[in-house]
Amino acid sequence: MRPKTKRYALRRRNPPGSPPGTLAIDPASAAPRLSVIRYTAGTLDESVVDDPTGLAAPEGGVLWLNVDGMGDAAMIERIARTFDLHPLAMEDAVTHHQRPKFEDYEQHDFIILRMPDVGTPGFATEQVALCLTSTGVITFQQHPGDVFDPVRARLRNHTSPIRARGADYLAYALIDAVIDAYFPVLEAVAERLETLETEVITRPDPGQIGDIHALKTELAALRGAVWPLRDMLAALQRDEGSRIGAATRVYLRDCQDHAFQLLDMITSYREIATGLVDLHLSSQANRTNEVMQVLTLIATIFIPLTFVVGVYGMNFSPEAGPWNMPELRWRYGYPAVMVAMGAITLALVIWFRKKGWLGGQRR
Amino acid sequence: MRPKTKRYALRRRNPPGSPPGTLAIDPASAAPRLSVIRYTAGTLDESVVDDPTGLAAPEGGVLWLNVDGMGDAAMIERIARTFDLHPLAMEDAVTHHQRPKFEDYEQHDFIILRMPDVGTPGFATEQVALCLTSTGVITFQQHPGDVFDPVRARLRNHTSPIRARGADYLAYALIDAVIDAYFPVLEAVAERLETLETEVITRPDPGQIGDIHALKTELAALRGAVWPLRDMLAALQRDEGSRIGAATRVYLRDCQDHAFQLLDMITSYREIATGLVDLHLSSQANRTNEVMQVLTLIATIFIPLTFVVGVYGMNFSPEAGPWNMPELRWRYGYPAVMVAMGAITLALVIWFRKKGWLGGQRR
Amino acid sequence: MRPKTKRYALRRRNPPGSPPGTLAIDPASAAPRLSVIRYTAGTLDESVVDDPTGLAAPEGGVLWLNVDGMGDAAMIERIARTFDLHPLAMEDAVTHHQRPKFEDYEQHDFIILRMPDVGTPGFATEQVALCLTSTGVITFQQHPGDVFDPVRARLRNHTSPIRARGADYLAYALIDAVIDAYFPVLEAVAERLETLETEVITRPDPGQIGDIHALKTELAALRGAVWPLRDMLAALQRDEGSRIGAATRVYLRDCQDHAFQLLDMITSYREIATGLVDLHLSSQANRTNEVMQVLTLIATIFIPLTFVVGVYGMNFSPEAGPWNMPELRWRYGYPAVMVAMGAITLALVIWFRKKGWLGGQRR
Amino acid sequence: MRPKTKRYALRRRNPPGSPPGTLAIDPASAAPRLSVIRYTAGTLDESVVDDPTGLAAPEGGVLWLNVDGMGDAAMIERIARTFDLHPLAMEDAVTHHQRPKFEDYEQHDFIILRMPDVGTPGFATEQVALCLTSTGVITFQQHPGDVFDPVRARLRNHTSPIRARGADYLAYALIDAVIDAYFPVLEAVAERLETLETEVITRPDPGQIGDIHALKTELAALRGAVWPLRDMLAALQRDEGSRIGAATRVYLRDCQDHAFQLLDMITSYREIATGLVDLHLSSQANRTNEVMQVLTLIATIFIPLTFVVGVYGMNFSPEAGPWNMPELRWRYGYPAVMVAMGAITLALVIWFRKKGWLGGQRR
Amino acid sequence: MRPKTKRYALRRRNPPGSPPGTLAIDPASAAPRLSVIRYTAGTLDESVVDDPTGLAAPEGGVLWLNVDGMGDAAMIERIARTFDLHPLAMEDAVTHHQRPKFEDYEQHDFIILRMPDVGTPGFATEQVALCLTSTGVITFQQHPGDVFDPVRARLRNHTSPIRARGADYLAYALIDAVIDAYFPVLEAVAERLETLETEVITRPDPGQIGDIHALKTELAALRGAVWPLRDMLAALQRDEGSRIGAATRVYLRDCQDHAFQLLDMITSYREIATGLVDLHLSSQANRTNEVMQVLTLIATIFIPLTFVVGVYGMNFSPEAGPWNMPELRWRYGYPAVMVAMGAITLALVIWFRKKGWLGGQRR
Repeated sequence: MRPKTKRYALRRRNPPGSPPGTLAIDPASAAPRLSVIRYTAGTLDESVVDDPTGLAAPEGGVLWLNVDGMGDAAMIERIARTFDLHPLAMEDAVTHHQRPKFEDYEQHDFIILRMPDVGTPGFATEQVALCLTSTGVITFQQHPGDVFDPVRARLRNHTSPIRARGADYLAYALIDAVIDAYFPVLEAVAERLETLETEVITRPDPGQIGDIHALKTELAALRGAVWPLRDMLAALQRDEGSRIGAATRVYLRDCQDHAFQLLDMITSYREIATGLVDLHLSSQANRTNEVMQVLTLIATIFIPLTFVVGVYGMNFSPEAGPWNMPELRWRYGYPAVMVAMGAITLALVIWFRKKGWLGGQRR
Repeated sequence: MRPKTKRYALRRRNPPGSPPGTLAIDPASAAPRLSVIRYTAGTLDESVVDDPTGLAAPEGGVLWLNVDGMGDAAMIERIARTFDLHPLAMEDAVTHHQRPKFEDYEQHDFIILRMPDVGTPGFATEQVALCLTSTGVITFQQHPGDVFDPVRARLRNHTSPIRARGADYLAYALIDAVIDAYFPVLEAVAERLETLETEVITRPDPGQIGDIHALKTELAALRGAVWPLRDMLAALQRDEGSRIGAATRVYLRDCQDHAFQLLDMITSYREIATGLVDLHLSSQANRTNEVMQVLTLIATIFIPLTFVVGVYGMNFSPEAGPWNMPELRWRYGYPAVMVAMGAITLALVIWFRKKGWLGGQRR
Repeated sequence: MRPKTKRYALRRRNPPGSPPGTLAIDPASAAPRLSVIRYTAGTLDESVVDDPTGLAAPEGGVLWLNVDGMGDAAMIERIARTFDLHPLAMEDAVTHHQRPKFEDYEQHDFIILRMPDVGTPGFATEQVALCLTSTGVITFQQHPGDVFDPVRARLRNHTSPIRARGADYLAYALIDAVIDAYFPVLEAVAERLETLETEVITRPDPGQIGDIHALKTELAALRGAVWPLRDMLAALQRDEGSRIGAATRVYLRDCQDHAFQLLDMITSYREIATGLVDLHLSSQANRTNEVMQVLTLIATIFIPLTFVVGVYGMNFSPEAGPWNMPELRWRYGYPAVMVAMGAITLALVIWFRKKGWLGGQRR
Repeated sequence: MRPKTKRYALRRRNPPGSPPGTLAIDPASAAPRLSVIRYTAGTLDESVVDDPTGLAAPEGGVLWLNVDGMGDAAMIERIARTFDLHPLAMEDAVTHHQRPKFEDYEQHDFIILRMPDVGTPGFATEQVALCLTSTGVITFQQHPGDVFDPVRARLRNHTSPIRARGADYLAYALIDAVIDAYFPVLEAVAERLETLETEVITRPDPGQIGDIHALKTELAALRGAVWPLRDMLAALQRDEGSRIGAATRVYLRDCQDHAFQLLDMITSYREIATGLVDLHLSSQANRTNEVMQVLTLIATIFIPLTFVVGVYGMNFSPEAGPWNMPELRWRYGYPAVMVAMGAITLALVIWFRKKGWLGGQRR
Repeated sequence: MRPKTKRYALRRRNPPGSPPGTLAIDPASAAPRLSVIRYTAGTLDESVVDDPTGLAAPEGGVLWLNVDGMGDAAMIERIARTFDLHPLAMEDAVTHHQRPKFEDYEQHDFIILRMPDVGTPGFATEQVALCLTSTGVITFQQHPGDVFDPVRARLRNHTSPIRARGADYLAYALIDAVIDAYFPVLEAVAERLETLETEVITRPDPGQIGDIHALKTELAALRGAVWPLRDMLAALQRDEGSRIGAATRVYLRDCQDHAFQLLDMITSYREIATGLVDLHLSSQANRTNEVMQVLTLIATIFIPLTFVVGVYGMNFSPEAGPWNMPELRWRYGYPAVMVAMGAITLALVIWFRKKGWLGGQRR
């Protein structure tokens, strides 16, 4: 049993009653790092900038500004001004415990995602806020390290179809990358589940219930992370005014299928984990039975014998009368008693064997 | 185990069959205290009044009348007359066990909220009735002490955007403050849950089931409080005729997100608490097994030995025949028996060690 | 444990395949007793009549005919003819195990309610059939005794607003009275639940599981009674052609809120009751552990000691050789053995205290 | 425990991949028996025919052809040709494990029902396929014996309203008879449930869990049978093109109410049955505790006493020194030991009584 | 207990973040094998081809191209070009862990099915991708071996109605064959469930819980496979633009009924399996009770007797006083003690028989 502290992290947030639309910067947040990718079908330009002012998409192309770290309110506000982002969206972007959601602001689409945090042990998620304007995508992450490297690789490959498409396709590709990132997490869970199942069956141990509980807690957290993703995708597809074009919406259906598949898997694993609790309780009850059987076996055989030898340890005086323990003076008294006790033992052993209490017959 | 009395308070209400629209004042209720805040973007005026008659919003501004304590029917009726509030709304306002809801009366919106009661130990909620007219908000609370201080602070700050907005935004700010107030409550629950989880795993104790039960009862109460809040917000957003303007509705979506987030958290915590019951039952079963193992160990080792010494305590007369316990007269009879018993003990210990009943191998 | 017979009454009904629209009078039903209240804003006239023929509402007023007992088919048919009630409605009215429902017949609205039966021990419901015409309400009850007395009191009070309103408001008032009547029932359940919870925690007893089971069965029955009430109210509000006017519909929303509140409470209590089962099972497991601990304690201390005294009860002859139990002839043999046994006991007690098996430390 | 074989019958069906619309006759099916009832308000004519060709409703009346047994494909096809029945409907009619459903074919309505099979022990259902044309009803049953006798009796009674109505009313009457037939089945289940509940509480026995399991299995089967009936009735009422006229649809609502009532009852009984499992497990745990208590009582009283008598059975030689068991030579040594042991026993009995382990106080 | 490795196979998929619309060929996949069936009402032509280029339906007939194995991207692309299949559809076709779904592309309908994999032990499914164009069906399978042989047999039979119908009917026939293939799988599960139920009741054994768990896991997998099939069929029926004609849609309703029936059966079996866990736990508790009873019986009878014989084994010196164990010198001392012990035993046996602890009476 390895109880981890803070396994289901408390979602700390602004003090209750704070005004909306103001940037409540998390003091633990890193300073923003702005990486820019500007591309058209034919050109690609990657850079890291200090000042977002004046950043724009290339002619007929797309701009992707990725912001790692949200620790500087002035910088966030400068970015918001540059791209005309809504103050409420910015407030959500800096508040790190949002639920995945889709908001359709006038100037841009706003999407909150939670990606599995690959940088930490245990299951945790990192918030990604994604603003989709007509010519670009601005993503805000809590801290460096993300699941977007395959998208970057595809962007760098000039033959990749992503280069010929608009900002909405880039947004789709990023959402898809986030959803895909849950599959390895779930596969790791499935592997632990199988290992645990085998162990519970073959090597039952009281500590396993703690592992099952930890796994169930993690599955609950996973479900809590994927469930609102599904809602968000549904809202995104339903929305008439979204900047996601019809051509890209076909692909979003695919994202949704993956989200459903994740939920199917999580549901199955939760059921199996619940079954493991039964397996475990049954193995404990079985152990109780086994221990009890050994005790009963020993006690049932020896307690009567001990009584018998106790009888012949009594000090009745044979001189007082012929009925006072004459056996003690028989020539073969002792052997007779020994044989009688052997017979009793044999009878009990046969009876136990018939009841299945002696190893072998019953598992 | 500290069973609190009245943990899930009985919701006392008017005698069944009372006529609607009459003010059934709770005799335990305090006398009303009327605090007024009148503000425009540029001015703010706070006062405590004795008579609501003639109270009105300042020109182009907003009036917030907060009533603490509902113990005076005449006063409540005077307030209702002044602001033209519907009798049914007033009846709901004085009845302290309403479910959160939204009603769209002709003259005003009417919202019932339940805020966590910060003044009492354990989880309890206090009813807040909120009437939104076109120029003001009237709130009715059961007793003094509320979660609205951050809103008051923002109102007092003349640079805060709340000052430049209408009564609907104030209503939103108050609703938001109520919903936000559940987060610290839930965080406290999460902390107790983590502590309890650690304790159940590391220091199992029969009294823990009572604590888990208390926690589950509290989570059920929390869910009962937040669930209808969500319904109320949905009704408020759906309603065409509500006095909440389009600009403010954007913010209500945010409230709803928070309500969903609360429900997600409550659902997760409930699952974890249910898992703790399994952990606890398993730890009890384990304890039974441990106790049984000690007993079986001791009994299995000593019962056969006691039989052996009993044998040599028998009083068969060696004189009666050569087969009557000749061992007793052997030169090394006693040491031989002691060695034999040592060998039996050793064999049993080895067997137990192989079965994993001796500390160390098995947890 | 007091198992009541027929705790969840079998709902006996007409023989399968009976034709619809014929009055299958329950032979156990009492003879009808017809009480009439006719009122306008200014007048009120109460009477008990033998023959409904010719009964009509006063000019501009409302007639309420309440029928207690359904044991006379001819009388029921006469009432139906007088007020032009639909045969199918009459069939439902005399069949006493209907589910609450709303039917919109051409000539009148028809509502089946189930009110808690105040006259019987345990939870039971009595069917009330309510026909709402444009000028009156006809209610049919299984037997005398109902929850409508507060409504009657309000009718008799000439200042009560109910006197100035139409038949639909009277129907609402009766429905409201029925729903309100569930609150005291539920409060009684809550009190039993709290008592039981305290008892399970402080004085665990095998019989409690039966009480918990009885409580859960009652909660299931309550839920079964309230759930369709909610559906009925929803159908009533949705229906375009219902005789309930717009002014009265506002009040029906209130009824619905109460029904929701009842369901919230029932849901909470069911969860708490389920938690009590866990508490109970845990207390039983705990009791097993306690009993086992006492046994193991006693056995573990005395079994080794008994072995030791058995050793010195062996009859090896000291004369046969110097190794044959020379201790028996030592000057301080007996005190030495006593001291050794005291030391063993002390060691075991210390070990048990460390394991927490001696009262005080653990629970 | 009486495990019945094939308690939840495998629903055997045609080999996978068979073409639709061909009649896959079950070879175990009986040869068809065609009983015809032709009636108008004034006339009734019952007969058993060998050849359906030419069968038609009387002028202004209704024809009911009931087919018992589906074992002759040629006959089924002749019937289908005579009444212009759809091949897919006929395929469903001969396949005996259909789910209740409603299909609206151009020439006729087609309804699959499952009626409780009164001819077999345990709960089983028999399929009834019902084709409703504008002038008649054709019903197909698996084998003779059905729940339609009350309908036949009403038809024979020339004053019964059914005689004056159309084929749709006959179809309704048959559906109603099927649904009504579930009530006695459910009442039998309720009776067994009450008996079992009383037994589990008053005479706990290991075999009861098997009976509870059998009951739960049966309730699951009942729910599986009634649930799709409800769906079928909803589809029938929703359908615009159905041959059920408006006048008869009023009655169908009644059927639906009964189906809902059945489901309510099944849900309640399932909950109670689940509660019985807890009762049973608790009674087993209680029995373990009782057995343990007896053992612990006996052991705790006698093990110390046995130790004491063992002490005075030791053979230390009093001659070897004055400290070697001088008690043995005391004048009142033996009575003193007996009294001491009596005192120990008394103390233990008082302690046990205080712990509530001696009968009477604790159940 | 036979824990199978990889019982719930991890669904391996493309690396997260891969671009959509490119064919990520599974290297373990076999080389494609293309079998073509071209038919009209009068003609049928079966062949295996190496190159799909130029393949077309016969005049007025239907082409069915079945591709077994997806291991050659170039071949898949050639097929896609030939029949104008959408790249996203092709990507889904080669990715073997898709959820059943229906997509309506401009040029063709696209359906993902999962059929039970008849070639492997345990429950597994194989993906079938089905593209329906106006004149043909192209099916893609992971590897050879499928459930379509009955469809092929019907195609070869020139009198079968399938020959006279269009490609949509062929698609229906294939979907129907897939759904039908789940029935034998479920029947096998039902048989194992019945066997297990009988065993749990008649021959309880600790290993059975593992078998129940395996069965529940399999039922969860089955439900996971059938549930999305139902969604897919609903989407297919709802879709206006699908290539499934009105005449064929009637048959699809039948498929949907079968899917519902499968889900009904799975739900029932899951409930029964959950009940088996209770049965099993109860049988374990019962076994504990039985073992405990034997132990308590033996201990309760012999421990007091052993005490008695111990008393008369004490060495109090009768010479020291007349109260020191005078029984030892009574003439009938020994027989009296034996008789007394027999009486004690008899009393205990009678008491145990009354408590029902002696075989026969109980269970």
